Amino acid sequence: MSNTIFSKIIAGEIPCHRIYEDDLVLAFLDVGPLSRAHTLVIPKEAKATLAELSDDSAAAIGRILPRLCRAIVKATGCTDYNILQNNGPAAHQAVFHVHFHIIPRFPEAPTGQQGLGIEWESGKLTPEQGEALSEAIRAAL
Amino acid sequence: MSNTIFSKIIAGEIPCHRIYEDDLVLAFLDVGPLSRAHTLVIPKEAKATLAELSDDSAAAIGRILPRLCRAIVKATGCTDYNILQNNGPAAHQAVFHVHFHIIPRFPEAPTGQQGLGIEWESGKLTPEQGEALSEAIRAAL
Repeated sequence: MSNTIFSKIIAGEIPCHRIYEDDLVLAFLDVGPLSRAHTLVIPKEAKATLAELSDDSAAAIGRILPRLCRAIVKATGCTDYNILQNNGPAAHQAVFHVHFHIIPRFPEAPTGQQGLGIEWESGKLTPEQGEALSEAIRAAL
Repeated sequence: MSNTIFSKIIAGEIPCHRIYEDDLVLAFLDVGPLSRAHTLVIPKEAKATLAELSDDSAAAIGRILPRLCRAIVKATGCTDYNILQNNGPAAHQAVFHVHFHIIPRFPEAPTGQQGLGIEWESGKLTPEQGEALSEAIRAAL
């Protein structure tokens, strides 16, 4: 069990700008947004990381994401957006209750506000590495 | 309908290092990995963006993510990881078939390989902005 600011938001002890709620999921605006309409989608189940989350909570979040994305696109006119979910300090997680970010992208972002910056430095997977690694992960499933 | 390299992988016309498959979902290793065991989780439904994806496909992806994360953690020993899903060119989408990245983080990453770099430049949501924006998105749901 994690006990974070998100538990207090779920309990109604701290207010939020609510967008959607059902038995398993709550979605609300991030008050420190990377861009306009930056939204957080969280399970009511208080788990720190996705690996710890129940299948049902994870499925409920997955199910609502397309509808939330459509609403954000419609309400803001953004065309592009990222879904980002961070697990662990090395992965930029700051609140230790699972949360999916929906981060809209706007071509007209104000100068000086980069919002979410992504750097992508990819390597190469050899067939031998891929065979051994996929086998190891399948065995761990 | 999108028709991309992922459609050919789903059809078995192009090989992949498969990790998991069911009626709706396929998971396999990224051949241009940002880190060891960088995995792609895709719907078999050929849609370019999450907003276009069916609720059932999105729920199926959500449901399998915790299990895949646990297997990757177990098989690789990584502690931290990011889930990233990009929609549109401005959001770094390169293949126009929905895909969720699972990107493990390793403290011992080789020097010079940054893998996924994330910059986070947040702003501030005023209560008035939050009220108006959450109302607009709720109305669009």
